[in-house]
Amino acid sequence: MTRVRVDLNISLDGFATTTDQTPENPFGEDWGRLTAAYAATRTFRERVFHDTSGAGTTGVDEKYAARYFENIGAEIMGAGMFGLHANPDDPDWRGWWGDEPPFHAPVFVLTHTPRERIEFANGTSFEFIDAAPEEALRRAVEAAEGADVRVGGGATTVREYLRAGLVDELHVGITPILIGSGIRLWDDLRGLESGYSVASETAESGVVHITFSRAN
Amino acid sequence: MTRVRVDLNISLDGFATTTDQTPENPFGEDWGRLTAAYAATRTFRERVFHDTSGAGTTGVDEKYAARYFENIGAEIMGAGMFGLHANPDDPDWRGWWGDEPPFHAPVFVLTHTPRERIEFANGTSFEFIDAAPEEALRRAVEAAEGADVRVGGGATTVREYLRAGLVDELHVGITPILIGSGIRLWDDLRGLESGYSVASETAESGVVHITFSRAN
Repeated sequence: MTRVRVDLNISLDGFATTTDQTPENPFGEDWGRLTAAYAATRTFRERVFHDTSGAGTTGVDEKYAARYFENIGAEIMGAGMFGLHANPDDPDWRGWWGDEPPFHAPVFVLTHTPRERIEFANGTSFEFIDAAPEEALRRAVEAAEGADVRVGGGATTVREYLRAGLVDELHVGITPILIGSGIRLWDDLRGLESGYSVASETAESGVVHITFSRAN
Repeated sequence: MTRVRVDLNISLDGFATTTDQTPENPFGEDWGRLTAAYAATRTFRERVFHDTSGAGTTGVDEKYAARYFENIGAEIMGAGMFGLHANPDDPDWRGWWGDEPPFHAPVFVLTHTPRERIEFANGTSFEFIDAAPEEALRRAVEAAEGADVRVGGGATTVREYLRAGLVDELHVGITPILIGSGIRLWDDLRGLESGYSVASETAESGVVHITFSRAN
């Protein structure tokens, strides 16, 4: 049965986004610090950097990194995560995920200004839809054909799904740094833990992995 | 050499205080949930409940609970933690810590309206001082005679010491619940981790223990 999953890196002070981007460093230094342990894993190196040498960490962080990619049949993301906000006026912009977006599945991009569907040879497609969370989820579940649906981000989209009670499994990797500003994942989610079982695990890197799971 | 220590329970969304107190339930339900794993430890039962039967948990939470009470020579707390805000007009109010306050050391209470010093037979004393954080710390260090000083709370007082760079060791027990409102420990502490080594450990209860330590 399809499960709806969320998987994010956040800082100890709860931020899922960073604010220190500059033209010279478009990701910013904080993003690198926030995701360092995840980016060091063997799975990330293979799936995102296309490094097939087998290099990368293989401990607890790797276990969660591998799980991130398992059994995902479709993905939902906000317009910002695709890159629409950065390039609102270029209808041919194909997102900032490069020629091999690491999704390998249909991706539904939530936007009020839909554009043409894009397909990539590796199985990734982007379909732009103007839909409420429930409707987008209905379409993603259908596209997933029994596999899981991931609500990939950004933080605002994820919180919308969490608040609507639509998420079956939430994994966060908490990096023990304080970044002080950005979008807080946990805002307005009082009592989220009700109806989930919650598990905590610490990685060699110092990252704390917390998983909220709901029985289907 | 004296180390300045802080030790708090916070929620996953970063709150060190709760807001659901009622006249019928003056601590509120959230406080009980936030501190449940700590209150279940053998050390807490013995030191705070005066339960000498040896009952209580003995795992990872207990290790941190025991450490909380080790080698503390003096304590600093805000007026609210002593109870002054709840009873501003009663000069004979002896705090809400009962006849055996669990401090067993001189406690310096920060207040703009000092009152008479109070002493208890178990070694606890409360001295009320109108002083800047540095000055209060100087007095506490002197009183501690080489043992450590704990900045006990509340959250606002703790943050003042953290922001001033006066804390050598910060331990937080993070309970994986979302309480949605209160005082956030981590506000305005961007980059706190610089100059500390940070360790993470998970308890059987699901509580995540994070310790920031500075070399003296």
